[in-house]
Amino acid sequence: NAILNRVSKIGGHVGPNLGMVEAIVALHYVFNSPKDKIVFDVSHQCYAHKILTGRKEYFLNDDKFHEISGYTSPNESEHDFFTVGHTSTSVSLASGLAKARDLKKETHNVIAVIGDGSLGGGEALEGLNFAGELNSNLIIVVNDNEMSIAPNHGGLYQNLKELRKTKGKSPINLFKSFGLEYVYLEEGNDIEKLISVFQQVKDNPKPIVVHIHTDKGHGYSFSEKEKEKWHYNMPFDIQTGESTFSFSGENYNSLTTEFLLQKAKKDEKVVVINAGTPGAIGFTPEIRDAFGSQFIDVGIAEEHAVAMTSALAKGGCKPVFMVLSSFVQRTYDQLSQDLALNKNPAVILVSWAGIGPNDATHLGTFDIPLISNIPNIVHLAPTSKEEYFAMLDWAIEQQDYPVVIRVPSFVVSDSKETVFTSLPKPQVTKKGEQVALLGVGSFYFLALKVAEELSKEGIEATIVNPIVMSNIDKELLNHLKEKHSVVVTLEDGILSGGYGQKVASFYGASEMKVLNYGADKEFTDRESIEKLYNRYRLDEKKIVEDILTVLA
Amino acid sequence: NAILNRVSKIGGHVGPNLGMVEAIVALHYVFNSPKDKIVFDVSHQCYAHKILTGRKEYFLNDDKFHEISGYTSPNESEHDFFTVGHTSTSVSLASGLAKARDLKKETHNVIAVIGDGSLGGGEALEGLNFAGELNSNLIIVVNDNEMSIAPNHGGLYQNLKELRKTKGKSPINLFKSFGLEYVYLEEGNDIEKLISVFQQVKDNPKPIVVHIHTDKGHGYSFSEKEKEKWHYNMPFDIQTGESTFSFSGENYNSLTTEFLLQKAKKDEKVVVINAGTPGAIGFTPEIRDAFGSQFIDVGIAEEHAVAMTSALAKGGCKPVFMVLSSFVQRTYDQLSQDLALNKNPAVILVSWAGIGPNDATHLGTFDIPLISNIPNIVHLAPTSKEEYFAMLDWAIEQQDYPVVIRVPSFVVSDSKETVFTSLPKPQVTKKGEQVALLGVGSFYFLALKVAEELSKEGIEATIVNPIVMSNIDKELLNHLKEKHSVVVTLEDGILSGGYGQKVASFYGASEMKVLNYGADKEFTDRESIEKLYNRYRLDEKKIVEDILTVLA
Repeated sequence: NAILNRVSKIGGHVGPNLGMVEAIVALHYVFNSPKDKIVFDVSHQCYAHKILTGRKEYFLNDDKFHEISGYTSPNESEHDFFTVGHTSTSVSLASGLAKARDLKKETHNVIAVIGDGSLGGGEALEGLNFAGELNSNLIIVVNDNEMSIAPNHGGLYQNLKELRKTKGKSPINLFKSFGLEYVYLEEGNDIEKLISVFQQVKDNPKPIVVHIHTDKGHGYSFSEKEKEKWHYNMPFDIQTGESTFSFSGENYNSLTTEFLLQKAKKDEKVVVINAGTPGAIGFTPEIRDAFGSQFIDVGIAEEHAVAMTSALAKGGCKPVFMVLSSFVQRTYDQLSQDLALNKNPAVILVSWAGIGPNDATHLGTFDIPLISNIPNIVHLAPTSKEEYFAMLDWAIEQQDYPVVIRVPSFVVSDSKETVFTSLPKPQVTKKGEQVALLGVGSFYFLALKVAEELSKEGIEATIVNPIVMSNIDKELLNHLKEKHSVVVTLEDGILSGGYGQKVASFYGASEMKVLNYGADKEFTDRESIEKLYNRYRLDEKKIVEDILTVLA
Repeated sequence: NAILNRVSKIGGHVGPNLGMVEAIVALHYVFNSPKDKIVFDVSHQCYAHKILTGRKEYFLNDDKFHEISGYTSPNESEHDFFTVGHTSTSVSLASGLAKARDLKKETHNVIAVIGDGSLGGGEALEGLNFAGELNSNLIIVVNDNEMSIAPNHGGLYQNLKELRKTKGKSPINLFKSFGLEYVYLEEGNDIEKLISVFQQVKDNPKPIVVHIHTDKGHGYSFSEKEKEKWHYNMPFDIQTGESTFSFSGENYNSLTTEFLLQKAKKDEKVVVINAGTPGAIGFTPEIRDAFGSQFIDVGIAEEHAVAMTSALAKGGCKPVFMVLSSFVQRTYDQLSQDLALNKNPAVILVSWAGIGPNDATHLGTFDIPLISNIPNIVHLAPTSKEEYFAMLDWAIEQQDYPVVIRVPSFVVSDSKETVFTSLPKPQVTKKGEQVALLGVGSFYFLALKVAEELSKEGIEATIVNPIVMSNIDKELLNHLKEKHSVVVTLEDGILSGGYGQKVASFYGASEMKVLNYGADKEFTDRESIEKLYNRYRLDEKKIVEDILTVLA
């Protein structure tokens, strides 16, 4: 109830937490935390753990909700060992703690708690493989609620199903094939049985998997029924289960799925790929059905997704991989080697990007330097709806480049009919002098505001929509030297390694003054946009102040 | 023999190729390439495939050796589908080709050829998991030669051993647990039996694993005996097997292993981690023995390695993960989430970094932007031997930061006794005026040459050893404004997103002129250092020319 109190008022992961309450109570009953160390995967199922380790008030007292995070955090408690938010890390992290214990000749239990959905991730599978030869205590609790955020994908889930059906007795056993010991518990929401199985494996001298079958969303009627919908929720009414958070107007998820569906219906070669987060990109079960075999959810396996996307393009298809900014960073090597080096004409849409009030584990500020510094990739930042869809259409149909498009967070229409027939180039949208404003993607609108403010000071600035983040347009930048003495860049991500610094480097030997605006290189944690913009001086008044200082 | 002719004269992967000659001949006999598509993992076993697909002369004719690469390359032949050099990608890439075939309603076979060593990589395991529900033709040939580059690590190798022992009949079966069909062939170097098994699986309507047991280095007495040594070789004498390539003088591999061994002997908490390339970092079998449990080879599992390294530090150990520049890029998300966000005091040594004549798949030019733009990581570039070991010693013993050190390629001693007792800071090594030269890591020596050349022009430049790549020292850079009008940065990697651009951005609004030197953002392929340096103007004469132009 404390959990429901919090999530109903500020939102949070409902299903994952409700399904694991009993197991977490049993873990804390049997093991002696923090001497025995529990490492949670993703850690979005850790609310009961937090309540049991001195943080109950943050679930009961509405004023205190925001003082703790929805994930484990060593800053909050000695019972939390890692700040975690991405999937598939717990077995690797736990095996490091176990190995440290062995080297220091200590004795205690190390427990990794991992959901079935996270098992498909490469880091988790690498971790299981390593654990198979660790030869000392490591307890891996596999919380099998028969689904990830959405239904699971991948052959291993057939094996989990078989193991559930045979109550763990199936001879074919993924965990045993990695060399791990194994026990099964069907009643994963029965505290007494959980206590008994944990007591049985406590101090086990070898790595052992405890496979427990749980009910996602357990104990709350709405979330037991609609598991995908109740994985993560915005605030809702506890009695009715209805959302109390309304969101209106156009959004790029529905516009994009609609656009892609039309493309897919006309061309069987168009195929959309996603890695385990279909809901976050607008692929509801109905839309997935509409796409049929032209939608592929590979499960939580971003690396595989990028490699396969590249190969789909090589095989003559028109693939579009849709991924969130925070998760595309799981694929640097695949972007570089499998995709960019091979120059296959695949398309990647990166959404949920930009400066925001996200948890430190889910920031969208790192993707510009991550992607734009890889050779051969065309990295684009559309500003308006018209530009975005023209770009997407071009990217899907062209045959020359791997293209990554950074999908803006908010839909803005400029009502201009836009078509790209070749590689997009920067556009000067307003000619002026003295000052040139280069507003990248969603920050193009900030450039417009700065221009307006400058106008009050008698300066009619030039406005540029750079469109391309992966390269600077030397011809245009040289041309700006004629009538301008200051160039201002604005980008919605960290400055370090990003677009603006390329512009600064280009003008390094010239008389041109350059001002770069964007985020600092830092992990911010649930800070408001206002606070962040204020710290980064992302405000037309402050920027104009800086420009006037340079011009003085 | 054609293979031995080539590798004995220019070096190459001996063991992997000799073990797969028969299987590749059988694949080409049974399947109809390029209609049927063969995708090689790492592709360092593709020499026989190249010989059979029109590229024999490049193995027999000594003058033509350098015209083709040691990896598959679509630029060379329509029988090669991808430029590949990193491990664990073939199943994902092949499944993309298979899915493209299905969407286009074509019929042909898609074959992935993967070595046992590559199976431990996350991307391969994600690929196997996906293949398990592909439901159409995909033939995965697992070339099991009982070893990776070095002996394999991970629990799955016990399962492969069991499968070999039982001739594929063991009920516990990794591949079946991913939902794949499975056949085993003991005689993996017997052409007739290989042909028969490939004929049997040809046109199989579901993904199937063909597990073949091969002999690494087959047919050449030296390589059959010493498999690890003969994985990759510099030029050698075919008759005696002796190396004809000599390498003398100190190198950082042996100096580093020696230093770490001394640390490890004194402190049981010091532990070295590597991901499947112990030889490349100087960990011969003898040295591995000397480290005992304080050396961990996790197999080809870089993501797991970084996460575990972070956790070892959290658990109170002093871990040092040693990795090559080209492979550290497989771990961006782990560097960011598992390590940097958690601020655990682990150490990572990145070697084989810098501009070089490498294959496009193994470049060492991308690690500066990759790592230095992640918050919280202290990214260091030592210049001399004394500085490097002082830095390494400090990094191991400190408790505050994740530290990444870029190990220089060549050992240079400055004979200065160096000790770091706190976070290293940039050092002004020579005070001058007008021009300041910031030479990062190995390019510090280029800065010295530029200074000498400038001196001839009557300019006594200031020389700075920046040491830290992850941040600029604003105080120092502001101070330089007093007596200097040009700052020159030099770094041994791509400029895009790197150190110099941060300096250019810092000076953007000031009168200071900035010149950035480094590599272009591009995949170079076996180009000589001379040619690359020439293209990038990395030459004291050219740089002085540029400086004088700016000063004029």
